[in-house]
Amino acid sequence: MDTKAFYKLSYGVFFLGVKSGDKVNACITNTCIQVASNPTRIAISVLNNNYTCELLKESGSFAISLLDQDATFDLIKHFGMQSGRNVDKMAAFQLPTDDNGNPYLGWAACAVLSGKVVSSQDLGTHTLFIAEVTDAKVLSDKDPLTYADYQNHVKPKPEAPKEDRKIVGWRCKICGYVYKGAELPGDFKCPVCGHSADDFEPVYE
Amino acid sequence: MDTKAFYKLSYGVFFLGVKSGDKVNACITNTCIQVASNPTRIAISVLNNNYTCELLKESGSFAISLLDQDATFDLIKHFGMQSGRNVDKMAAFQLPTDDNGNPYLGWAACAVLSGKVVSSQDLGTHTLFIAEVTDAKVLSDKDPLTYADYQNHVKPKPEAPKEDRKIVGWRCKICGYVYKGAELPGDFKCPVCGHSADDFEPVYE
Repeated sequence: MDTKAFYKLSYGVFFLGVKSGDKVNACITNTCIQVASNPTRIAISVLNNNYTCELLKESGSFAISLLDQDATFDLIKHFGMQSGRNVDKMAAFQLPTDDNGNPYLGWAACAVLSGKVVSSQDLGTHTLFIAEVTDAKVLSDKDPLTYADYQNHVKPKPEAPKEDRKIVGWRCKICGYVYKGAELPGDFKCPVCGHSADDFEPVYE
Repeated sequence: MDTKAFYKLSYGVFFLGVKSGDKVNACITNTCIQVASNPTRIAISVLNNNYTCELLKESGSFAISLLDQDATFDLIKHFGMQSGRNVDKMAAFQLPTDDNGNPYLGWAACAVLSGKVVSSQDLGTHTLFIAEVTDAKVLSDKDPLTYADYQNHVKPKPEAPKEDRKIVGWRCKICGYVYKGAELPGDFKCPVCGHSADDFEPVYE
């Protein structure tokens, strides 16, 4: 099995916003597909470890913003590489909300879909949610940001290894988790997203 | 609800090959995502009307080839715009097969994933299959073909309307189904993929 084959799958990049009671959070995901028409259904997959996933299981509704070519690494880093359990990601923003109070992006997104969960399936690392689409809006005429665009143009290039600098950690290229230590065990699995040591890149001192 | 928002979702384009007993078929789809890691699971959505879907429900296994930038409209038309119930799509080809005998593409594909279905859910027009990945191979170093590439560069441009030519039918832009007749009813739904009249383009005499 060559896991590099999975890198050839095409995805978008999404801002998943959820409100549950008075708790509001958002994370960055890369899986949202239309899975049926008439009635329209979409499927999204969300990391079980994510606070947004916990809120979504409570609320059963979400707004998913489709990032466009204006999306920056700082935006993705803010919402995608820290947890709403530790940081109030929404504090600095006044985001628009859908009819269920779920936040969406008023910039850097070309469309937003509001979903009401009709079924879910726990797949270990992630839960797959199937949702009825209750609203859909086009937000810009920019092209959507693909996950390949993110990897090739948005994400900062990894630093070139330098012989005089020590490796002090390893960063998961998928979710941003950082393992502290010079050597990453070959059988290491990311505790956040479950990806293997192949998906880590060095962090230099 | 603005259904144009759905056009902003990013997809790949795939060749879904299935063998069930001595029946072999393949169709073109645009939904395959990794939905969990460790263990790795992928989800695919397939039109219930497709013969390939019928075979997949029988066999429980498939090979999905990820089309790359070499894929042509003729290839997609051959496997995607006619039914294996009426035509032996495989007759002219000698395709490689995975360990379960499922055919995959030996050209115009950058990777292939073999899947064993672990659960499925009927969503009306489509069935969503969740599968364990039993094998994965990189086939080329070409970039994957995205559904946007297909719409913008691979699919022939629609003919410019000409005042002296009559409209004799309407073609579904999603699945290729042709409605015969000059006028498409506004509430028409594609009998193959369920998409609405907005997704049809005129066919001239």
